[in-house]
Amino acid sequence: MTFAAQILTLYPEMFPGPLGVSLAGRALAEGKWSCSPIQIRDFATDKHKSVDDTPAGGGAGMVMRADILAAAVDHAMAAQPGAPVFAMTPRGRPLTQALVRDIVAGPGVTILCGRFEGMDERLFDARPVVPLSIGDYILSGGETAAIVLLDACIRLLPGVMGAPSSGDVESFESGLLEYPHYTRPNLWEGRTIPEVLRSGDHAKIAAWRQRQAEDDTRLRRPDLWERHGDVRGQSPSGAQRQKKEKRE
Amino acid sequence: MTFAAQILTLYPEMFPGPLGVSLAGRALAEGKWSCSPIQIRDFATDKHKSVDDTPAGGGAGMVMRADILAAAVDHAMAAQPGAPVFAMTPRGRPLTQALVRDIVAGPGVTILCGRFEGMDERLFDARPVVPLSIGDYILSGGETAAIVLLDACIRLLPGVMGAPSSGDVESFESGLLEYPHYTRPNLWEGRTIPEVLRSGDHAKIAAWRQRQAEDDTRLRRPDLWERHGDVRGQSPSGAQRQKKEKRE
Repeated sequence: MTFAAQILTLYPEMFPGPLGVSLAGRALAEGKWSCSPIQIRDFATDKHKSVDDTPAGGGAGMVMRADILAAAVDHAMAAQPGAPVFAMTPRGRPLTQALVRDIVAGPGVTILCGRFEGMDERLFDARPVVPLSIGDYILSGGETAAIVLLDACIRLLPGVMGAPSSGDVESFESGLLEYPHYTRPNLWEGRTIPEVLRSGDHAKIAAWRQRQAEDDTRLRRPDLWERHGDVRGQSPSGAQRQKKEKRE
Repeated sequence: MTFAAQILTLYPEMFPGPLGVSLAGRALAEGKWSCSPIQIRDFATDKHKSVDDTPAGGGAGMVMRADILAAAVDHAMAAQPGAPVFAMTPRGRPLTQALVRDIVAGPGVTILCGRFEGMDERLFDARPVVPLSIGDYILSGGETAAIVLLDACIRLLPGVMGAPSSGDVESFESGLLEYPHYTRPNLWEGRTIPEVLRSGDHAKIAAWRQRQAEDDTRLRRPDLWERHGDVRGQSPSGAQRQKKEKRE
């Protein structure tokens, strides 16, 4: 089964871009996914092929027209009726690893790439387009965000990753940051690999890694730690207490 | 002044990639930024040019070696002593628009792109490398994250954006999502542009947009709204109350 990616964009030449190289590039060549950039301008109706207009109410920049975007979305939905449609915008729902897993379980994805000041909001009422954000910063357009979304999806497609287990114990899959990694040389610039990792005691190693993942998440990402506690049906401080007891 | 981007990567052919097109591509051609991908493998010391080894303590995948990465970082730091060094990793500090503004105020940026299971953690103790994450999801490597970071930076460089004011009233710049946009046609599929935006009353339009930005942030991103309240030195519920009183 080929995972079909359709990208609605004013810059089709940006795709597959970096996704034509390495892991994703090999998967593309092997037909594990397909990459169909679609030029939004082809759905313009005037002779200038214009896709944008000045913002209602005034202000800088230009806004992408709802009628043109809807025509492009309708075209993509007809070609791939079962694929969800996302519009990359900083106003969107934050992308999570759980959502990536949901998308990958389906037949493909259609991604609308915003440009200029944004897209006419009526599009989101009139079509099943889900606004999606890859993070709290502003890009020049949705294209680089689309590349990130596709990268996250493609690596999880069956047969793409070398080691099938790699996808399981990573950051966020358990609601925690991943534990720190070490490899040879054992001694480097006076720094050694933590003793426990060289003990050969798998249970002890697993426990150490779990504790590191929890400690790093609590220190670096209190927001993630808070949610992690909620998911487990206990407060983070409860989880902390429990762990402390275990250690004692 | 050219903003100098150095990218330490196993896939230099991924750069500039999509950043060679459109806004960023034009800025690159005009010398507003420079793009220097550096092959990490060039800093390997054995005849196989290996950059990774098996994880200490066992587990799937491979880990990038601290000694090789440090040699590559040392090279980049010697070339651009004033530029901060970031390593793209899901274990990192979340990228924000405020950090983008900080980076852009400097002479450039060096970006280390992780691959495989991750980078030997000792690198972060031994070198001033800041782990940075673009979001809570997993990519096949740091390259697509580096492209996102650079995209966010480049558009803020002097003379890159068409309208200089575009950078000011966007999502996150004020700690809020941006207000929704509308443009012609005024009537589309039975949906009209909100009346106030056609009133010509600039004060009323500004107030409406501010309220929309606040409402959308509160509904879509309670996490952002919470922090926004903190910044303003009042609780979000206090801000809500205040607004409600105004409306009445």
